[in-house]
Amino acid sequence: MDYYSSKIQSLIEELAKLPGVGQKSAQRLAFHLVNLPLEAVEKLADTILEARRGVRYCQKCCTLTDAELCPICSSPSRDASTIMVVENPRDLAAYEKTGQYEGLYHVLHGAISPALGIGPADIRLKELMQRLQTEDIAEVIIATNSSLEGETTAMYISKLIKPTGIKVTRIASGVPVGGDLEYIDEVTLLRALEGRVEL
Amino acid sequence: MDYYSSKIQSLIEELAKLPGVGQKSAQRLAFHLVNLPLEAVEKLADTILEARRGVRYCQKCCTLTDAELCPICSSPSRDASTIMVVENPRDLAAYEKTGQYEGLYHVLHGAISPALGIGPADIRLKELMQRLQTEDIAEVIIATNSSLEGETTAMYISKLIKPTGIKVTRIASGVPVGGDLEYIDEVTLLRALEGRVEL
Repeated sequence: MDYYSSKIQSLIEELAKLPGVGQKSAQRLAFHLVNLPLEAVEKLADTILEARRGVRYCQKCCTLTDAELCPICSSPSRDASTIMVVENPRDLAAYEKTGQYEGLYHVLHGAISPALGIGPADIRLKELMQRLQTEDIAEVIIATNSSLEGETTAMYISKLIKPTGIKVTRIASGVPVGGDLEYIDEVTLLRALEGRVEL
Repeated sequence: MDYYSSKIQSLIEELAKLPGVGQKSAQRLAFHLVNLPLEAVEKLADTILEARRGVRYCQKCCTLTDAELCPICSSPSRDASTIMVVENPRDLAAYEKTGQYEGLYHVLHGAISPALGIGPADIRLKELMQRLQTEDIAEVIIATNSSLEGETTAMYISKLIKPTGIKVTRIASGVPVGGDLEYIDEVTLLRALEGRVEL
């Protein structure tokens, strides 16, 4: 199989380990990389190492960052009385892109999944409960995914928080904006019906 | 937009520059990378640099390799009297995977494209003509793509080689094996008809 050279072959194998990168894409990426100017490749390798070496969890919300507190937790302009609970930093980014949410976050780094053997102790739930004791929180918005694991996690967290008297809410699930009813699955259609609001 | 951290943000931006990697995939890749063990990330960065620093063109066939001659050109078991001309190293790999081709290759690194301003001098054609003078070649198989550029290149090369008396052939184009006629474009269907062989 070594019709390239051992170095290019090793590169293809390393790249193929990345998520969403198959054998063909790894090949294309490898040839792209070896054709780039050396400085561009050095910059890429450096950026990867820098990010990996510098990465840490925000002491407050547990998102990935490179300082003690992430930019959101350390911002004085955010509403510190609201916490939105998300499964991972990408979900946090998705809500940040809306530009409309002013509160803080809490990143669980996963969701409870009995099938995969992921229990409440395997996600950053203890850290959330500690925050509720030390910070002055008025509302916890649970924005875990609308999957089985996400729903299980939401249910579990809400039961845990309810006794503290803090308001717990869940983001709405229903028909996505611009979604064409005929292509939407039945569960979502039922959810949308159940969650109907008066006009 | 800096809701991650500057280092992760830079990594996402660097990754998004790669071909076929959009903003979303770059995000997913970045979080995958910062979650990997440090040694795995160092190995990846190292492999990228090693491949880029070590890469060079094979002195004979011009494919990318890390030695003076690529593994194919330096193999004594290949039929050195046949050269298959391909557009890039990935096409070479595709034919190598068949395991049936025994000859050598010549990698053009592109194809003639008047629309993109790529002329015969911009691809490794001069190197091919030099090989025909110094090596003892009986046949040149042109395996450029079946696109406008590939066909133009094939035509050009065949006109260039014909006067030397060396046999020039072109890989067949037609209906792909397993292809369903009703989904195949008309040009391919016509090609398949023109290239029909007696049974």
